[in-house]
Amino acid sequence: MIKAGIVGVSGYSGKTVLTILNQHPDVCVSYLSANNTQGKIADIWPELRDISPLSCQKFDPYNLIKNCDVAFLAVPHTISMAITPKLLSAKIRIIDLSADYRLRDARNYKKWYGLPHTDVKNLRKAVYGLPELFKEKIKKAKLIANPGCYPTAAILGLAPLITTQTNNVNSIIIDAKSGTSGAGKKATIGLSFSEVNENFKAYKVLNHQHSPEINHILSRLGCHGIQAHFVPHLLPITRGILETIYVGLKKKITLSQIHRVFKRFYKTEPFVRVLPLGIQPEIKNVSYTNFCDIGLALDESKQMLVITSVIDNLVKGAAGQAIQNMNIMCGLKETKGLM
Amino acid sequence: MIKAGIVGVSGYSGKTVLTILNQHPDVCVSYLSANNTQGKIADIWPELRDISPLSCQKFDPYNLIKNCDVAFLAVPHTISMAITPKLLSAKIRIIDLSADYRLRDARNYKKWYGLPHTDVKNLRKAVYGLPELFKEKIKKAKLIANPGCYPTAAILGLAPLITTQTNNVNSIIIDAKSGTSGAGKKATIGLSFSEVNENFKAYKVLNHQHSPEINHILSRLGCHGIQAHFVPHLLPITRGILETIYVGLKKKITLSQIHRVFKRFYKTEPFVRVLPLGIQPEIKNVSYTNFCDIGLALDESKQMLVITSVIDNLVKGAAGQAIQNMNIMCGLKETKGLM
Amino acid sequence: MIKAGIVGVSGYSGKTVLTILNQHPDVCVSYLSANNTQGKIADIWPELRDISPLSCQKFDPYNLIKNCDVAFLAVPHTISMAITPKLLSAKIRIIDLSADYRLRDARNYKKWYGLPHTDVKNLRKAVYGLPELFKEKIKKAKLIANPGCYPTAAILGLAPLITTQTNNVNSIIIDAKSGTSGAGKKATIGLSFSEVNENFKAYKVLNHQHSPEINHILSRLGCHGIQAHFVPHLLPITRGILETIYVGLKKKITLSQIHRVFKRFYKTEPFVRVLPLGIQPEIKNVSYTNFCDIGLALDESKQMLVITSVIDNLVKGAAGQAIQNMNIMCGLKETKGLM
Amino acid sequence: MIKAGIVGVSGYSGKTVLTILNQHPDVCVSYLSANNTQGKIADIWPELRDISPLSCQKFDPYNLIKNCDVAFLAVPHTISMAITPKLLSAKIRIIDLSADYRLRDARNYKKWYGLPHTDVKNLRKAVYGLPELFKEKIKKAKLIANPGCYPTAAILGLAPLITTQTNNVNSIIIDAKSGTSGAGKKATIGLSFSEVNENFKAYKVLNHQHSPEINHILSRLGCHGIQAHFVPHLLPITRGILETIYVGLKKKITLSQIHRVFKRFYKTEPFVRVLPLGIQPEIKNVSYTNFCDIGLALDESKQMLVITSVIDNLVKGAAGQAIQNMNIMCGLKETKGLM
Repeated sequence: MIKAGIVGVSGYSGKTVLTILNQHPDVCVSYLSANNTQGKIADIWPELRDISPLSCQKFDPYNLIKNCDVAFLAVPHTISMAITPKLLSAKIRIIDLSADYRLRDARNYKKWYGLPHTDVKNLRKAVYGLPELFKEKIKKAKLIANPGCYPTAAILGLAPLITTQTNNVNSIIIDAKSGTSGAGKKATIGLSFSEVNENFKAYKVLNHQHSPEINHILSRLGCHGIQAHFVPHLLPITRGILETIYVGLKKKITLSQIHRVFKRFYKTEPFVRVLPLGIQPEIKNVSYTNFCDIGLALDESKQMLVITSVIDNLVKGAAGQAIQNMNIMCGLKETKGLM
Repeated sequence: MIKAGIVGVSGYSGKTVLTILNQHPDVCVSYLSANNTQGKIADIWPELRDISPLSCQKFDPYNLIKNCDVAFLAVPHTISMAITPKLLSAKIRIIDLSADYRLRDARNYKKWYGLPHTDVKNLRKAVYGLPELFKEKIKKAKLIANPGCYPTAAILGLAPLITTQTNNVNSIIIDAKSGTSGAGKKATIGLSFSEVNENFKAYKVLNHQHSPEINHILSRLGCHGIQAHFVPHLLPITRGILETIYVGLKKKITLSQIHRVFKRFYKTEPFVRVLPLGIQPEIKNVSYTNFCDIGLALDESKQMLVITSVIDNLVKGAAGQAIQNMNIMCGLKETKGLM
Repeated sequence: MIKAGIVGVSGYSGKTVLTILNQHPDVCVSYLSANNTQGKIADIWPELRDISPLSCQKFDPYNLIKNCDVAFLAVPHTISMAITPKLLSAKIRIIDLSADYRLRDARNYKKWYGLPHTDVKNLRKAVYGLPELFKEKIKKAKLIANPGCYPTAAILGLAPLITTQTNNVNSIIIDAKSGTSGAGKKATIGLSFSEVNENFKAYKVLNHQHSPEINHILSRLGCHGIQAHFVPHLLPITRGILETIYVGLKKKITLSQIHRVFKRFYKTEPFVRVLPLGIQPEIKNVSYTNFCDIGLALDESKQMLVITSVIDNLVKGAAGQAIQNMNIMCGLKETKGLM
Repeated sequence: MIKAGIVGVSGYSGKTVLTILNQHPDVCVSYLSANNTQGKIADIWPELRDISPLSCQKFDPYNLIKNCDVAFLAVPHTISMAITPKLLSAKIRIIDLSADYRLRDARNYKKWYGLPHTDVKNLRKAVYGLPELFKEKIKKAKLIANPGCYPTAAILGLAPLITTQTNNVNSIIIDAKSGTSGAGKKATIGLSFSEVNENFKAYKVLNHQHSPEINHILSRLGCHGIQAHFVPHLLPITRGILETIYVGLKKKITLSQIHRVFKRFYKTEPFVRVLPLGIQPEIKNVSYTNFCDIGLALDESKQMLVITSVIDNLVKGAAGQAIQNMNIMCGLKETKGLM
């Protein structure tokens, strides 16, 4: 049995890691912490009453090290990079759900998150945990930077094209829509029910901190600099992301050719479903699952491709993907506990 | 033109007072204040851009007194009783949307709101502003205690029976359901979209601060002590209240007899619609209106009456009723600006 | 492996049975049918793409009999009683999620469902499948009448009191609120998003077909006739029921005494959680689970008890409970596939 | 007083026309019809009980002609073109809220609506009723083709740029999101609450019937053929549209230059609010109003402009705009009854 710890179990991502691990046949959750809340897990998450007997402690690295093989860090950014060096030196494997190790270039971190990176050494060792693209590296990783929710949907939607037809891609626009749980468990008026319900808006237009993450990974895949335009919106739903991705193509191509490229690319991937032509993905079809569903459409001129990509932001966009990474790191079947 | 001031325009009730007064032919809004936010109203409420040129100031009683005939106090409780004496002595008419002057007995205020009442003298002069019941007193009032949202729906639903058949009433249960705007514009996790959406719960069961208000008014109407059991719930909608009121009857009565009593009672009231038998009220039918819709059903034994009463909590449950009161106080037609 | 068939897999209950059985370690789904839709299950339920390879056929009793040990009938009422005799005579165990075998008295069926019962013989043999109350009978049953969603929440909320203190119960009012999936997958204007969203209403007030089911079972438990007053409402959520149950008591009792009665009553039941005093159940805490959470409150006079009971109408209120029944009938652990 | 008739008052657009006209000081509603429902308006729209005494009849052109100066046709497409010739020849002014007279080219009608156009003669006389662009023509019009909801938001968002900088526009993508009332009052499973709630999806991707309408008008404004890519999505809200419009620019331009262009373009328009830079429009800020709010953002390269445009689909996207057109046609102040 793998002994797993969750740091930050009082947030939505941490809770979802716990919920999924509770059903995982090869994992035993052996440590839970949160800084603002302690005590029985049922007092923090009433839905877990009678399910998990664990208590949540104030974070103490020595307790975590003593009790765990793997640690899931579901904490706000800056916290991960403060505790990761100590955990790594104690040989704990780390899956960091925060943004701290996602951007390879520390200057980008400073630019987008407003603070200097304090663990540049490990930044270079971190593996970007998108299993469909980097499985071999994940197998050997000690530190996983679990992808952001928006980047997961965007990169999975674009990867087949970028890796196989990068010279045909002229421009990329990502129009993203997310439910509110992506913003975390927060007390703000902007996230209050009276403000979000019966409403819809764009925010951080062309200026969201997930942009550099998306562009960095797409550029790696395409082997040249790619600048996608990214605009997120806030949906009046709790869970789920849909991204509508517009790709201007240089050369004409048919929709069935593109469809074949996508089907082939994800042929052996258990969590990506390329839908039949004519069918559009819907958020509810992936809710509470680790699936990413992808739909395709092409305009008459055959030069504007529309890719629609949906995930559950708390599962494939956070906790589920983290556990998929853990499975791969630990030599387990990738789908264990996730189907 | 009546010059009206709104104290607390940054909250939902204050905003709704402003919105309605903007369409009122006989009123000019001449003063706006809020303690935490100042500046152009469009910066506080973007929906009012290009509609209202007014600015919102930090509250200053002298400015209000200088500029207004009537003041709407849409502030948290305890604030109203701190400023009311000064305004009253300057001959400003006051419509207080807070709870400060609703409970006649200051000890009850202490018990339910946790603080001693600091303006007991005016407490006795305040008129409970439920126009359908106390119109004559409202005409002469200087200080109106605008009813709570839950009490408005409850008392309008029960008044015909309590006033005409009080001896036939055995027991009263009020199962109330409210949208989130009733809790005000607040940054709390409990009111965040992720917690309220796809959820429903009871709260302050048998222990809500609107209970003594309901019981006090019902007892006045029935001329003897009435103790209704009151349980509120939080609905995943922004606006609206529905209360399902169960009245155990001592003697058998037919549904058409009861229906006639209700129709007659509200015959001349423009804002209460007693629905035909067989039709149930729905929150959406009163949204953004000052109506209270009432439905009736009786069980086979003819001894359990079910009254369903709906209002928009921000209109008939707050701002609309406040303006209805102002119309009556100022000798205007009761429906002015409200249809 | 138990071979299970699902009749009516195109509805929400049937789909939920399939979804849960897909994760059940001891069951193999070997037959799917629906009358209006045939073909690959992914074409009916896109969320099941790549999960279930089964196809859905037009119902044919011989195919079902040939392929199954157990049949889940998730069909509209009247359909079940048409096919049950044939299946029973072929020794198929039946769990009927429709209303056809819930009312012991065929005259009641006629009265509430509008048609004569056509299988009175088996009506008497059917066992009411509420495991927390009738486990021993379920073990030996061939035909289970799976309880309605409203009755499940109501009866579980009331059973401890009715069985242990029936003489202390004066009156019972059940104010029930349900999400829309309880009405099934239907194309009606009344269930359309534009009508349900930002709305709330009571319906079939004191006249819902689940009333006789509730009263019949409560009367069995209390060993005398019990008539609860039942009023259902439509919540703008997809999944979940909350019932607020008001019990007028003849004699005073303390809240801790009642709490002890409830805790003891459900001590060994894995799916009922009696919450600590002071905590109210919320629908989201039981969503997608087979739990029933129960909260308790008592008024100052100690004679009005408020029981709040929540379930997921598609799980504990339908498919989950059906599988819990199957587990018991087949000698498996009651919680298999349901935790 | 202008005598107005509404054909199709049982749909959401027709109802909204009636609701707004009820508050219009210069209009008297003198005729209501609907084909599937007749009787008192309160039986069709319970929210109008005690507000409108009118009854709704089966459509009869002679009754309409006898009683009205202006007719609002809020009917499904194909119905308008069947009745318009007779009404026009009787000198009734017509505002058609359907799609029948929006596409100048009858072949386009056939292509997108699947049927030949049966009133080609009047098709050429119809004026496209977007007042901000075609006010002078509307003043003299006898037949108004009231714009579609998606085209209204798109064209208002793009018009300043297309009319003043058409040569600088390289490509246009319109990512549109609409609430459910845009689909009308329909009984379909796809629009049922259980399917729409907690969900989001694209539909008719690059293939929506509003595309040719958008492209036709933009091309008129730009004086050359413009092909925008249009993808609509279904939002889980009742009212409102937000469109995120991506314009690839040929030459660099600053955001303040663009902002000035937009401000100047709509300087005298009462219903278009170009927001200050840095502020994004939100659907709730235009709900129940005739406003279109527009926000602007530009990427670092200064060559990708993002325009966000919001309207209430039932007001500025249908009924409100229709009444704005009526005001202009009848020589009234454009904002009468709409503020």
